[in-house]
Amino acid sequence: MTETAREPVLIFLFGATGDLARRKLYSALYRLYTRDQEFAVIGLARRTHTDETYRDLINDSLPSEVGQRKHFLERFYYRRLDITRPESFASLSTFCEELDARYHLHGNRIFYLSLAPCFFAEAAKQLKKSGLAETKGWKRLVIEKPFGHNKESSKELNDSLLHAFNENEIYRIDHYLGKEMVQNIEVLRFANPIFEAIWNRRYISNVQITLSETLGVGDRANYYDQTGALLDMVQNHIMQLLTLVAMEPPVRLETNDVRYEKVKVLKAVRPMNIHNVTEQIVRGQYSRGIDANRERLRGYLDENNIRSDSETETFVAAQFMIDNYRWQGVPFYIRTGKRMSEKATQIVIQFKKLPKNPYFHNVNHVGPNLLVIYISPDEGLSLKLNVKETGETGNTIPISMKFRNNALAMENMQDAYERLIADCIKGDSTNFTRWDEVAYSWEIVDSIVDSWKKRHVPVDYYEAGSMGPVSADELLEKNGHHWWPLMHME
Amino acid sequence: MTETAREPVLIFLFGATGDLARRKLYSALYRLYTRDQEFAVIGLARRTHTDETYRDLINDSLPSEVGQRKHFLERFYYRRLDITRPESFASLSTFCEELDARYHLHGNRIFYLSLAPCFFAEAAKQLKKSGLAETKGWKRLVIEKPFGHNKESSKELNDSLLHAFNENEIYRIDHYLGKEMVQNIEVLRFANPIFEAIWNRRYISNVQITLSETLGVGDRANYYDQTGALLDMVQNHIMQLLTLVAMEPPVRLETNDVRYEKVKVLKAVRPMNIHNVTEQIVRGQYSRGIDANRERLRGYLDENNIRSDSETETFVAAQFMIDNYRWQGVPFYIRTGKRMSEKATQIVIQFKKLPKNPYFHNVNHVGPNLLVIYISPDEGLSLKLNVKETGETGNTIPISMKFRNNALAMENMQDAYERLIADCIKGDSTNFTRWDEVAYSWEIVDSIVDSWKKRHVPVDYYEAGSMGPVSADELLEKNGHHWWPLMHME
Repeated sequence: MTETAREPVLIFLFGATGDLARRKLYSALYRLYTRDQEFAVIGLARRTHTDETYRDLINDSLPSEVGQRKHFLERFYYRRLDITRPESFASLSTFCEELDARYHLHGNRIFYLSLAPCFFAEAAKQLKKSGLAETKGWKRLVIEKPFGHNKESSKELNDSLLHAFNENEIYRIDHYLGKEMVQNIEVLRFANPIFEAIWNRRYISNVQITLSETLGVGDRANYYDQTGALLDMVQNHIMQLLTLVAMEPPVRLETNDVRYEKVKVLKAVRPMNIHNVTEQIVRGQYSRGIDANRERLRGYLDENNIRSDSETETFVAAQFMIDNYRWQGVPFYIRTGKRMSEKATQIVIQFKKLPKNPYFHNVNHVGPNLLVIYISPDEGLSLKLNVKETGETGNTIPISMKFRNNALAMENMQDAYERLIADCIKGDSTNFTRWDEVAYSWEIVDSIVDSWKKRHVPVDYYEAGSMGPVSADELLEKNGHHWWPLMHME
Repeated sequence: MTETAREPVLIFLFGATGDLARRKLYSALYRLYTRDQEFAVIGLARRTHTDETYRDLINDSLPSEVGQRKHFLERFYYRRLDITRPESFASLSTFCEELDARYHLHGNRIFYLSLAPCFFAEAAKQLKKSGLAETKGWKRLVIEKPFGHNKESSKELNDSLLHAFNENEIYRIDHYLGKEMVQNIEVLRFANPIFEAIWNRRYISNVQITLSETLGVGDRANYYDQTGALLDMVQNHIMQLLTLVAMEPPVRLETNDVRYEKVKVLKAVRPMNIHNVTEQIVRGQYSRGIDANRERLRGYLDENNIRSDSETETFVAAQFMIDNYRWQGVPFYIRTGKRMSEKATQIVIQFKKLPKNPYFHNVNHVGPNLLVIYISPDEGLSLKLNVKETGETGNTIPISMKFRNNALAMENMQDAYERLIADCIKGDSTNFTRWDEVAYSWEIVDSIVDSWKKRHVPVDYYEAGSMGPVSADELLEKNGHHWWPLMHME
């Protein structure tokens, strides 16, 4: 986490006309530009563009309030590229050296693969073959999810990347790791001795991680129906959030020390098997329903381009157990899905109850302490405590002490992508996933997929616009727990 | 803490024309009246009054916004009384039985001694002798501070009370115990497992109790110059706050279980002796200075009716050690004084620092976690935490999560006196001091007074309008601690 110089860099942006680039990357680059980051970009895609029409496309994707665009846009260049054709790559060599010289970029290169996953391996291969990956400066590869579709395929992909890049040159993006409050989990836990003191099985009853979306499958039907919520959300984002909550304090706040602790958590997550998979995991699929505005919502099977007999899950709830000294016996409940009642990412740490019988036997019901980490859309913390009710009843009442992150310093707010691209330029890979994290995460997910297949576990339907199937509630009820409703900072 | 019926009662108010009655008791009784408490009052004092002039005096002492006074005032009666003359008491017998019958008070009687302490014993004696303390209902004695001026005199006083009342009929008022946030300490600690988990020597660095006044000695010069801050504030209020912070969880939330735990703390406080008294206690006296409005303030020795060579302390700071398993090695710092820069009562729980060297070696200074209990004038809690600074520096910054008590339910707000009188009527003596609490508290204070005498410890001067003498800062500095400045909820 030490601040290092942000050197100038040439960015090869694969997928330059794609959705992610237009929604996120150009505005992130714009903000870096306003903070004096020196760079030039070669936009690469299959479509035909001139530098001018490409710059128009970028211009259109910037938020309307952005000023002084001209100097920013001038550093973007477009080259048509077909990844499967080696000559497309060869033709870039001279041009990128020209840009190196013009912008004084010292041969530093980032290859940003904002591509369909089927092109990742081929792109790496061609980068190697064309010599573009040989440079007098540093080189880094940024790669978007999904990183394979199981452990085996991710290993294959990784091996192919390793032909052109070292592990420490590969930046696997999980944009949740770029979120302010996700990065805050580590600080919250380890810079506050009062939390670290109680962050274990003796004081924590259970942990609940919710990552809910209101959108349906939308225009990602083809991809999504082959993927499902488990692979799309749990393997990466959810497992990352879980490791940040569960990991031991790293020896130092340094990249590999942190990632080593995260891997230890993933290795300690109890794998699923055909015996426990139906007990501990719920598969859900949305059926028709209504949203918060009382608009009708289609069921998943009625969505465009979805097979009418699809058994793909659009919702997963699970109980993970972590078999180590800190967490033995503490369920980590996770849930994620599409077409839920509200879009939010939050983590609830529920602490154990007081010894009620001997002590508060004659007082009203006292609820447990809760620490809530609001990741999005709210950013902040709340701590639920019990205090004396004002007056003479002697009752306790719950109150919530809150900290809103976004009230603090709006001018310093960064988008996840801005933060991650900046980290990559600095060479700080702390908030990217290391290969062994990916591999162990796939092991967990593979154990679930295999068990589902062997047991032929069907999906449980839930109404679109709800918080998931009834079975997701039962998952907790059998342990005497319940999902806390999504909370809000206001 | 169970809610019991509030039965009707006849209140004998000794000192009915005095300062406390006018400032606090009549308005407290008024609020009880608006909550349907049935009572009648016989006001007793040496001055001549009719029922009418007495009611005028009460009327004048009520806040201006109070409505419907007539029915309230009608239940107040005045009788002239000289405590030293038995016939004054005898003449009350018939009258109080008349009121019993008229108001259906079932012979329940509260004798409220709002008197100069020299009359306490005599009043109890005459109550016994006159037969007023023999009644077919219940009887309770409410007694104001000071309860003696050392252990020996308090024992004498107590013995004389016991001629007429049992221990469980004696309600020794410490009005700090009637304050909302003081009563909340117990709930905060024991209804929140996360706090009980860290409420000990392993996690707490030190505790700081401040009870500061801005007023000088005022018109209490005669009393104060013979008493000083140690006896006036530490023996009662401060030691009570200290026991509430330090006590073990009581077996049940019941009066004697709670008071038993408080006594255990007082017994475990390390007494002072001639060797440690100068190390652990600071005596201060204010000299001239200026207040927050830049008005000049007189020094104590220039106040009216103060001996010009007075060595009375108007400020005390101390480091108490509690020799038990929970608190071994944790200093409890206290400070109280007159003519300080701000009037406030608050408690700071300072938690231990993180293992900074191995972990945050390369990050900015990280401050300790603090839990602040605001008792007055603010009422609430704040918890100081460290979070990630927004942006990419990787620094931590301190934030404060807050709970303001007074924002909750203003219509339920009670004054300390209202609450304590209501408790007395209910027969709940939890928030009054039991004899053994008084006795052990005097033992601690006596050990200090004796040591001061033997060592001839002089006072350290501090500027009026400051937070005390330099020696009060040095008291903490030698342990590597410092006083936290008074904090505010806004």
